[in-house]
Amino acid sequence: MTAHLGPNRYGKDGIRLVLVSRPEEDEGPHTLRDLTVDVRLEGAFEAVHTEGDNSSVLPTDTMRSTVYALAQHHLTGSIEAFGVALTERFLSASPAATAAEVTLREHSWGRAQVGGAPHPHAFVGGGAECATAVVTRTSTSGPGVRSGISGLTLLRTRGSAFSGFLRDEFTVLVETEDRIMATEASADWTYGEHNQPSYDDVRAAARAALIDAFSTHSSASVQHTLYAMGGAVIGACPDVDAVRLRMPNKHHIPVDLAAIGLTNDRAVFVATDRPFGVIEGEVRRD
Amino acid sequence: MTAHLGPNRYGKDGIRLVLVSRPEEDEGPHTLRDLTVDVRLEGAFEAVHTEGDNSSVLPTDTMRSTVYALAQHHLTGSIEAFGVALTERFLSASPAATAAEVTLREHSWGRAQVGGAPHPHAFVGGGAECATAVVTRTSTSGPGVRSGISGLTLLRTRGSAFSGFLRDEFTVLVETEDRIMATEASADWTYGEHNQPSYDDVRAAARAALIDAFSTHSSASVQHTLYAMGGAVIGACPDVDAVRLRMPNKHHIPVDLAAIGLTNDRAVFVATDRPFGVIEGEVRRD
Amino acid sequence: MTAHLGPNRYGKDGIRLVLVSRPEEDEGPHTLRDLTVDVRLEGAFEAVHTEGDNSSVLPTDTMRSTVYALAQHHLTGSIEAFGVALTERFLSASPAATAAEVTLREHSWGRAQVGGAPHPHAFVGGGAECATAVVTRTSTSGPGVRSGISGLTLLRTRGSAFSGFLRDEFTVLVETEDRIMATEASADWTYGEHNQPSYDDVRAAARAALIDAFSTHSSASVQHTLYAMGGAVIGACPDVDAVRLRMPNKHHIPVDLAAIGLTNDRAVFVATDRPFGVIEGEVRRD
Amino acid sequence: MTAHLGPNRYGKDGIRLVLVSRPEEDEGPHTLRDLTVDVRLEGAFEAVHTEGDNSSVLPTDTMRSTVYALAQHHLTGSIEAFGVALTERFLSASPAATAAEVTLREHSWGRAQVGGAPHPHAFVGGGAECATAVVTRTSTSGPGVRSGISGLTLLRTRGSAFSGFLRDEFTVLVETEDRIMATEASADWTYGEHNQPSYDDVRAAARAALIDAFSTHSSASVQHTLYAMGGAVIGACPDVDAVRLRMPNKHHIPVDLAAIGLTNDRAVFVATDRPFGVIEGEVRRD
Repeated sequence: MTAHLGPNRYGKDGIRLVLVSRPEEDEGPHTLRDLTVDVRLEGAFEAVHTEGDNSSVLPTDTMRSTVYALAQHHLTGSIEAFGVALTERFLSASPAATAAEVTLREHSWGRAQVGGAPHPHAFVGGGAECATAVVTRTSTSGPGVRSGISGLTLLRTRGSAFSGFLRDEFTVLVETEDRIMATEASADWTYGEHNQPSYDDVRAAARAALIDAFSTHSSASVQHTLYAMGGAVIGACPDVDAVRLRMPNKHHIPVDLAAIGLTNDRAVFVATDRPFGVIEGEVRRD
Repeated sequence: MTAHLGPNRYGKDGIRLVLVSRPEEDEGPHTLRDLTVDVRLEGAFEAVHTEGDNSSVLPTDTMRSTVYALAQHHLTGSIEAFGVALTERFLSASPAATAAEVTLREHSWGRAQVGGAPHPHAFVGGGAECATAVVTRTSTSGPGVRSGISGLTLLRTRGSAFSGFLRDEFTVLVETEDRIMATEASADWTYGEHNQPSYDDVRAAARAALIDAFSTHSSASVQHTLYAMGGAVIGACPDVDAVRLRMPNKHHIPVDLAAIGLTNDRAVFVATDRPFGVIEGEVRRD
Repeated sequence: MTAHLGPNRYGKDGIRLVLVSRPEEDEGPHTLRDLTVDVRLEGAFEAVHTEGDNSSVLPTDTMRSTVYALAQHHLTGSIEAFGVALTERFLSASPAATAAEVTLREHSWGRAQVGGAPHPHAFVGGGAECATAVVTRTSTSGPGVRSGISGLTLLRTRGSAFSGFLRDEFTVLVETEDRIMATEASADWTYGEHNQPSYDDVRAAARAALIDAFSTHSSASVQHTLYAMGGAVIGACPDVDAVRLRMPNKHHIPVDLAAIGLTNDRAVFVATDRPFGVIEGEVRRD
Repeated sequence: MTAHLGPNRYGKDGIRLVLVSRPEEDEGPHTLRDLTVDVRLEGAFEAVHTEGDNSSVLPTDTMRSTVYALAQHHLTGSIEAFGVALTERFLSASPAATAAEVTLREHSWGRAQVGGAPHPHAFVGGGAECATAVVTRTSTSGPGVRSGISGLTLLRTRGSAFSGFLRDEFTVLVETEDRIMATEASADWTYGEHNQPSYDDVRAAARAALIDAFSTHSSASVQHTLYAMGGAVIGACPDVDAVRLRMPNKHHIPVDLAAIGLTNDRAVFVATDRPFGVIEGEVRRD
């Protein structure tokens, strides 16, 4: 054939893992972890493609069982630490692989409140917000960790403007000094080289900083607020080197009640699904 | 044609309404309401279908604008009260209609916490759980109200068994005295005839009762717990006449780690998507 | 407790079944069936709920394995016949049950075209359209069959009007004699009592009649077209007694290009997601 | 602040465009185009983020109206040509932008068959498969075009093996010489520098080559088939320089009927949702 193989990788998506930790006395409080894990391997897999030679292929089903096998000993702290253990395992189990990437999302649960106190064995689901981590490792370098949050849904009803923008003959948007700004933000960040971050503490501090800046920043645009939010994470988290943000603009359009003889003083809005703006940017420590 | 029209109805689905209430001083705390509303009308619409005579048709677009038009004056308290106002309006605006039904779902938001205090203008999304209401009204009777909750995700790690069940030659399920029980419950309830319920108070009490019973009931099956949960709502909410529950069984299957030489003492589970059990039942006050 | 159990049922949703039939010579054309099956049982299950007595409970996991167990012998023709066999089995396997309902959706596949001819072992997925059937059976009566189609996406660019409708003070909709009409129709139908329908032939004839009537009917409204489509099924399918249609109105709104100095003579439309009209109705044989 | 802005971009997602072309005599056959368009701009937008200076920002709402404004004159042939026109417009309308990217997906419709002939004004939806294109342009270079197909769902019941793979202590997968292989493939490709491709002809030829190779290749793995499919595109499409494929492995697991005393000779399968394998690779012309 007049063709050859270019970049390639393979893996498993959507490995669902729920881990329950019990104290010696089973009556005591249980701990619940609920993760979705994706795995990718890259490496010298040319003969797999061109010859149908599977001798170097660690099956994706083995990736699945490996996640379950390692959970009890390695998912005892942060998802980042679990990801580090998994990438190490995958590289050693797959001699042909030169790089492994593990993506982890942790779904949050709160303890059920019963009679005003948290119940030791019952939990209430925490919605769409997830803690995220991507761990990469190559055969020649240590693990790289990117931590994050996804599904952070935020809305503010005051202090957000959008005006003074470029106009051309297709521009119909009306300028506003007071709009609803809403987003379902995703953020992820990397760490300085010599840091020993406490991943969970950083995530908690980053989350608080993101919410604080979104809430209090005097906003001229989503871009403007994105930069303030990124800067707030840099300011609050000394271990963080750079933070990326993705903020879809979940538009809330004032309903034209004047057409039916009513007034609408920034009170009645329609939340639209599509289209939606998307603002993406990175903020880096100097 | 040798055919005639049978039962029929029409309406609008997915009307998205966000309502912001502001104090006189705009700096004060704003209130945010976020609803999705569906509308249905039934009545004497035969000529619409058979003759193409639209003179009796209130357009579904008018249903949409009516929801927005009534929001400022009528969405000041419970979604049930808003639904009552909407059904009244729709019946009066549509002389041919003999019945109107309005379904409301309220998406929850919490106030953003900034510096340890709730922010007056910023909100954090509350996940998939919704308050629900269905209000029906006919041209000859007052409104009927059904209130509820949907998307209440619950999981417990102890105190749930499933054993002693019927077996046939196709039964492979292993009996267990200790499993994970998880569900995304929906509940809705009706009220006694002469009650003047405070809908929001009832919902809060019902929600607490559902979570309490799910958490503490010694469960022999999802059915057994469903009945306990329904009974708890009846016990906690004197205004409630009957409560319906729908509880998908979100299966958590212990992973067979023995196959790879490891032990799994009720620690490692896979959360499966499909198929899933579905348990539905009503509990009625005696 | 001052409460008792009301109506209740249980079952399994989302049983995914793929069945391959091979000729004796494996090289010959294979047949592929791809179904999703839901099961429900009702009956004397009070003690399950109130006492935690599982002795009458056929587990939902057994429902799952039963669907797989019966597939090879009973899914040899229509999904309706398979549903009849399943309901019979479930009632006999569950002495406490007084009614069984099985819902079947068949996902369509076409044969892959290779070199201009259908390939015997390769298939191309057929999109969202499904054949559907709901079979119900009680302990005292024979099976009832409802057949249907879901996900039939249709659009026409000419011959559809909506005018002459009722107006009130909230009506802003503009009358039109020429709009896009689009829907994702669901239809289902029942059969006369003494008929021995060939289910697949009826479905093919009903589908052709639905498409024909949608395409050629001079439409004054979705209701008007719905009635024409239902009547066309009655006319084309002597075995069909009554047909129900559900037709969401997938709105296509002309874009206001005049605002930017351009003309839009029924050419440029935005397809909106929400809200959407919903028209439901039944057409019955006289 | 001790931070600065890194890479950033912004745009609009989910612009839904339906374009109807009518002959002079409106009775003649109409043409229907149904697209979803995403837009991204990159450039000198630092002050937008850091100063809240919007003077360089072309609003995402203007991106939306631009897509509608250009449709009638520029969506007359391939989606690639429309994308080229859009990127040119966006770069000229936004002086601060240094790069524009437009992603287009075309949803397929077939003509409704009425009385054995295609109807001139009625259409039936074509499922999840889309034609795709990504057009990029910078202020210093001409447009780059990547064409593709997404949502191509394929399944074969014979001629697919997976054996001889690497095993470790966590490997439980059984080797097979005869399995179901199924995928929902995405493919996209680039063109040689001096080619003047007929984009639609290339897509049709690429699609046929993908289906042919998937159907007839003697498969040792998904990787093996992916390479054959990519090579087939290179062989069938002289204009194509390189083709990327993404093939999720939609697992079909033989049901263990032996556990209930039945035999299952590659007949009864469960189609699982998660987890799923993912195979990605590029094939390049020598």
